Amino acid sequence: MLRIAVLGCGRIGRMHAANIAVHPRTRLAAVYDIDPKSARAVATEHDVRAAETAVALFASTDVDAVLVATNTGTHADYIEKSVAAGKPVLCEKPIDLSLDRVNRCAEAVLSKDVPVQIGFNRRFDPGHRAAWRAARAGEIGDLNQVIITSRDPGMPQRSYYQVAGGLFRDMTIHDFDLARFMLGEEPSEVFAIGGRLIDQGMMEALNDYDSAMVIMRTKSGKQCHINNSRTSTYGYDQRVELLGSAGMLISGNRKPHELRRFGAAQSEAAEPYLDFFIERYREAFNAEIDAFVHCIETGDAPEVGFEDGRRALILAEAAMRSAVEGRFVSVSEIG
Amino acid sequence: MLRIAVLGCGRIGRMHAANIAVHPRTRLAAVYDIDPKSARAVATEHDVRAAETAVALFASTDVDAVLVATNTGTHADYIEKSVAAGKPVLCEKPIDLSLDRVNRCAEAVLSKDVPVQIGFNRRFDPGHRAAWRAARAGEIGDLNQVIITSRDPGMPQRSYYQVAGGLFRDMTIHDFDLARFMLGEEPSEVFAIGGRLIDQGMMEALNDYDSAMVIMRTKSGKQCHINNSRTSTYGYDQRVELLGSAGMLISGNRKPHELRRFGAAQSEAAEPYLDFFIERYREAFNAEIDAFVHCIETGDAPEVGFEDGRRALILAEAAMRSAVEGRFVSVSEIG
Amino acid sequence: MLRIAVLGCGRIGRMHAANIAVHPRTRLAAVYDIDPKSARAVATEHDVRAAETAVALFASTDVDAVLVATNTGTHADYIEKSVAAGKPVLCEKPIDLSLDRVNRCAEAVLSKDVPVQIGFNRRFDPGHRAAWRAARAGEIGDLNQVIITSRDPGMPQRSYYQVAGGLFRDMTIHDFDLARFMLGEEPSEVFAIGGRLIDQGMMEALNDYDSAMVIMRTKSGKQCHINNSRTSTYGYDQRVELLGSAGMLISGNRKPHELRRFGAAQSEAAEPYLDFFIERYREAFNAEIDAFVHCIETGDAPEVGFEDGRRALILAEAAMRSAVEGRFVSVSEIG
Amino acid sequence: MLRIAVLGCGRIGRMHAANIAVHPRTRLAAVYDIDPKSARAVATEHDVRAAETAVALFASTDVDAVLVATNTGTHADYIEKSVAAGKPVLCEKPIDLSLDRVNRCAEAVLSKDVPVQIGFNRRFDPGHRAAWRAARAGEIGDLNQVIITSRDPGMPQRSYYQVAGGLFRDMTIHDFDLARFMLGEEPSEVFAIGGRLIDQGMMEALNDYDSAMVIMRTKSGKQCHINNSRTSTYGYDQRVELLGSAGMLISGNRKPHELRRFGAAQSEAAEPYLDFFIERYREAFNAEIDAFVHCIETGDAPEVGFEDGRRALILAEAAMRSAVEGRFVSVSEIG
Repeated sequence: MLRIAVLGCGRIGRMHAANIAVHPRTRLAAVYDIDPKSARAVATEHDVRAAETAVALFASTDVDAVLVATNTGTHADYIEKSVAAGKPVLCEKPIDLSLDRVNRCAEAVLSKDVPVQIGFNRRFDPGHRAAWRAARAGEIGDLNQVIITSRDPGMPQRSYYQVAGGLFRDMTIHDFDLARFMLGEEPSEVFAIGGRLIDQGMMEALNDYDSAMVIMRTKSGKQCHINNSRTSTYGYDQRVELLGSAGMLISGNRKPHELRRFGAAQSEAAEPYLDFFIERYREAFNAEIDAFVHCIETGDAPEVGFEDGRRALILAEAAMRSAVEGRFVSVSEIG
Repeated sequence: MLRIAVLGCGRIGRMHAANIAVHPRTRLAAVYDIDPKSARAVATEHDVRAAETAVALFASTDVDAVLVATNTGTHADYIEKSVAAGKPVLCEKPIDLSLDRVNRCAEAVLSKDVPVQIGFNRRFDPGHRAAWRAARAGEIGDLNQVIITSRDPGMPQRSYYQVAGGLFRDMTIHDFDLARFMLGEEPSEVFAIGGRLIDQGMMEALNDYDSAMVIMRTKSGKQCHINNSRTSTYGYDQRVELLGSAGMLISGNRKPHELRRFGAAQSEAAEPYLDFFIERYREAFNAEIDAFVHCIETGDAPEVGFEDGRRALILAEAAMRSAVEGRFVSVSEIG
Repeated sequence: MLRIAVLGCGRIGRMHAANIAVHPRTRLAAVYDIDPKSARAVATEHDVRAAETAVALFASTDVDAVLVATNTGTHADYIEKSVAAGKPVLCEKPIDLSLDRVNRCAEAVLSKDVPVQIGFNRRFDPGHRAAWRAARAGEIGDLNQVIITSRDPGMPQRSYYQVAGGLFRDMTIHDFDLARFMLGEEPSEVFAIGGRLIDQGMMEALNDYDSAMVIMRTKSGKQCHINNSRTSTYGYDQRVELLGSAGMLISGNRKPHELRRFGAAQSEAAEPYLDFFIERYREAFNAEIDAFVHCIETGDAPEVGFEDGRRALILAEAAMRSAVEGRFVSVSEIG
Repeated sequence: MLRIAVLGCGRIGRMHAANIAVHPRTRLAAVYDIDPKSARAVATEHDVRAAETAVALFASTDVDAVLVATNTGTHADYIEKSVAAGKPVLCEKPIDLSLDRVNRCAEAVLSKDVPVQIGFNRRFDPGHRAAWRAARAGEIGDLNQVIITSRDPGMPQRSYYQVAGGLFRDMTIHDFDLARFMLGEEPSEVFAIGGRLIDQGMMEALNDYDSAMVIMRTKSGKQCHINNSRTSTYGYDQRVELLGSAGMLISGNRKPHELRRFGAAQSEAAEPYLDFFIERYREAFNAEIDAFVHCIETGDAPEVGFEDGRRALILAEAAMRSAVEGRFVSVSEIG
C-alpha cells in the first residue's frame, strides 16, 4: 500500500483524498492545507492526521508519495521539495503560470530520478483512451484531424479567475495536453482567438476570455481544432473527434443514466450531461492514481510527465500570443 | 412502362396513384372511385381519365395491371375480376374480413396464373428489409425472438373503425405479416389480449380494442411478441427487434431530420418521429411498386402473395379467438 | 455507522461486502460463508472477522443488521432468525422457491416490527427509477403498457441451474418485481411461454427454459410484456419501456464509455453494453444499501419489503403454470 | 407551372432536371449542354427538347426561368444573359472564381429587377434549417459559436480539381455561406490552414489542399470554426453545431435507414451515412426549387441572392490568403 499525502484540501484535493482512501493499492497518509480548518475537516473525514506544514509532510517517514492540489503558485515549489525528499509526486496542472519558473523546476526534476506526474486526467478517461488506443492500433488509418470540444458547465467565481492565469493556461491547457496525446506529434504552430461572449464586463476587467477557438498544426501537417466555452447549460461538454484516412472516432459525453423521453414535442430526449469534472472524469481520476502507483512500483516513466506539463504550457503561451497578435505563432518562438 | 389503374381514391389510393405517376417504370392509366368526384379530382391532378365503373377498367386494353385500394369489402371481388381479366393485381390488405370469402377467392386466384400481390408494405421498408437480410445472412446466428412494436400516431375516425374489422384484422395484420416474414417460419400458436385503454367508451360500443399484446410461437419454438396501440403522441412507432444466438438487430423509427437539442433540462432531444405511414413508409410504398413491376416482368411469384394475405388473416382470427378465450390458440384450429 | 454482517461470500455476497465496506453510513461488521475459506478470504480483504456460524452473527452485539446472500434454500431461515434477533435484514431474491415456505416465513416477519428488505436491486437503478418517477409525476399521462427486456449476457453453469429454481423464479422474478413497481398495480393475470432455444439438451434435462415471453394484465387493464433470454452476446440487456397516453419513457442500457466508431461498414458503433449485473447495476446496489440504512434509521417501511418478494414469487408460479397449461392464469389461483 | 430550362447536363444538372420535372409547380421546358449527346440523353429521358445553343434558350418564349448548372467559367455570362432576357435564374455556386468578374456581374444584376438565386442548397436542408429557425427564435439564447463539419465521401477526379478553383472556392464556399446564414452576421476576419493529407502528390501538383480548418470571427465577436476533408470513409459528413448562452443545437447526418446492429464487438452500430449530396440533400434541392418558384411568384427577394454568392467568395479568397500568409485576414482587405 502506497502511503500518499494530499496537499491542498479544496474541491479537487478533497476528491483526490477520497479516491486515495478507498483505492485498493493506496492509503491516505496525511493531508495539509494552508487553511488548517479545511485540512482538519478532511483529516477527520478519513481518520488521518492533518499536517501543520507542508514541509513536515515531505520529511515524514510514513509518507511514500505526495499529491499536490494546492494553488498553482505553489506547485513548482512543492514539486521541487518532493523530488528533493525523494518522494514521487503527482501534481495538478498547471505546473506554474510562468514558463521560466517551469523551466527552472525542470532542472530540479531532471537532476533526480524521482517520478513526477502531472494531473492531466483526461488522458485516463475510458472513452478518450479507447479512442486513442483505436487510433494507435491503426483502426482509422492515418490520423488527419483532431477536434476537441471542451466547455465548462458554469462560470467559476471571480476570485478563481483572478489567480487562474487566464483561459488558455487554466482551461485550454487540458485540451492542449489532450491534443498532444491524440496527435502523437508535437504541434508546431498555434492560432487562437479569445472572446468575451458570456460575461464581457468581468472578462474585460480581468483581461481574460470566456470563449476561445484554436487551430494547431503539427510538422507533418496534422490539423487540430479546439473550442472552449466557460458555460454550457446542458452539462460538462467534453468531446474528442479523430478523423483518419480510414474512419472516424468520437469520444462523447456521459449522462447520469440512460432514460429517454418521447412526447408530442420531441423524441429520444436524454438527461443533460454529467455536471462537471468530478462526475464526468470519476473513472479517469481513479485511473490516474492507478498510473501513479504503477510508475512508482515498476520504475516506468510516468505516463504524463513533467515535460508534458511544460509542453502544454508552451502551447498555452503560444495561444495567448496568437490571440493578441492575430497570427499563426510558431511554438519554437515560445520555448 | 406498365400501365396501372388505381381503384379507390381515398388517402392511400391517392398516394399510390401519385407514386405510380412518377415511378420510372409505370404509368398511371386511369383511376376509379365509388365517389365520381374523388375519382375526377385525382384524374385531373395526374391528367388521366376517371373510369365510370370498375368493371370498365378490368376490360380496358390500355390497362396492364390494377392496384386495389378500395374498401375492404370489395377487395376479393376486384381480385377475382382482375385475375379473370388476366390483369395482375396489387391489393391493399386485408383481402377480406371473412376467412371463408378469402378461401373462395383463393380458388379463383389459384386457377389462373396471374400475379396477385398483397399490400404488406412494411416488408419493403429499407430498415426492416436490411434487418431481414442480415438475419437471413446469418449475422445474428439462430433467430430466437422477434419483437414488433407498432403504434399508430392517432385514433382514426369512428366511421373507420366501424368497417375496419377490429384491431387485429385492421392494424395487427401488418404485424402478423411482418412477424411471418422475419421469423421465416409459420407461427403455430397465438396468444393475445386486447385492451380499451384510450377510448373505452367507443371501444366498448364497437366491441373493439385500442391496445393489444400478442405472443406467438412457431413449431421450432421461436418466440414472437407484438404490441399495438392506437395512439402514440411521439409519432408513428414502428420497430422490429430480432434476437439471435449471435447478436441483435433493431430496425427503428425515422425522424423528419437529424436536429438534436441540448439545454438545461435535456440533451440530444430529437424531433418526434415521422407522423404516419405515408411519410414513414414512403420508400416502402415505392419499393412495393418496384416489386409488383418486377414480378410481372419476370414471371417470378410476387414477394408478398395471396397466401401471405390469407395467412396473416388466419393469425388475426386466432388472436381474436385468444383474446376472448384467454388461451394459446393453435393456428390449425382456424384454417 | 450501521454495522452490517454479510452472510454468503459468493459473487454477489463479495460485492455487497465491498459496497458496505466503503459506504459512508455503513461498516462491514463480519462475514460468514458455509465454506470457511471463502469467508476468510473476504474477511481478510476487508480486515473484519469471519464468523464460524451464521447463528453466532445473529447473536453478536457488534452486528446491527444482516445482509443475506447465501443459497436460496437458506434465505427464509436466516430471515426468521434475523427478525427473531431483532436485526434488520436485507435478503437477496427469491425468498424461497416454495410459496408455502414463504407464507410461513411471512407470519414470522409480520409478528415482529423488524425491517425486512428484499434485494430487488433494479428498482434502484438511476435510469429505471427516473422512468418510474417521471411516470408517477404524470409526464406520460395514463400508463398503458410496460415492456421489459431482460437478457443475461451468458449462460450460467449447470450447477447453478440445478438449484436456481428455473428461469421464472430465478431470473424473471426480477422482471416481475420491476413490472409491479412500474405498473403501480398488481397484475391479475399471467400468460407465459418458455423455450429451449440456446441449450436444448441441458434445458430438457433440467426441465427448465432458457428463453421466455410473458404477458400480464392488471385489473384496470394495463398491459405488460416481459421477454427473457439467458444469452445476449452484446452485453447485459436491461430495458424498460413505459407507454402512456401522453408519451413514452425508455430506460436503456449502459456502455462502459461513450466511444463511437465510424468507417466504411458502419457509423456510430458503440461498445457492447456493460457485461453483467455488478457493472450494470453498480449504482443500484449502492442505492439499495442507502435505502436499507434509511428504513432502519427512520423507521419507514422498506421500499422493497417482504410482501414484494412474495408477490413476485406468486407471479413466477403463475408463469410456470401458464407455460405448462397454455392459458391466461389468474394470479388469484396461486396465492 | 413555371417552365424552367436547365443549362448543363452533368451530374448536378441531371438531378435538377429530374427534380424540376416532377415538382408540382414547375415543368422542365428544355435542356442544354455543351456536349449535345449529354443534352439529348436528358431531353429524351424527360421528353423535352434539347436546345442547340444556350442563347436560344434565353430567347425562348416557352422558357420562364433558367437553372444554370454548367461549368463555373460560364456562370457569370449566363447570369448576365438570363437577366438581360428578363428571365429569373438559379445558378449553381460559385458565381465565378474571380471576384472582379463577380463584381462586374453584380452591376448587370443590380441594373435589372430580375431574381437571381445562388445554389447554396444547404440552407434548405430540413435539419440545418430547423437549427437556424430554433436559434433565430431564441431557443439557445445568444449565439456564441458555430461549428461546421463538412467532409466529402471521396476524392473527385483530377480533371474536376483542375477547374474547380481549389478547396476554399469549390467546397468550403458552401460552408462559408452556411456560416453566414447561421451566424446572422458577417464574419469580419478569417484564419485558415490548408493541408495535403490525403493525396499529397496531386495536391502539390495542383497547388490545392484536400484538408482544411478555418476560424472566423464576426464584428460582435461570435466565433466560427469550419473543418473540411475531401474524404470520409463513413459517408458524406455534414454537421452544424450552434452553441448559445442557453443551449446547443446540432444538425447531424442522415442514414439510409435506421437499422442498428448489436454483437460481441459492438452495439448500436448504424449504416454509414448517406453517400453524397444528391442523397443527403435531396429534400434541400427540392426546397431550393420551391424557394425559387416562391420568389418569382411573389416578387420577394430570393432567399439566397447574388450578394450571398459574392460574400461567400470573398470569404473563400480571405481563407486562401490566410492559408498562405498565416494570419487573421480582415475581410475588408478582400472586398
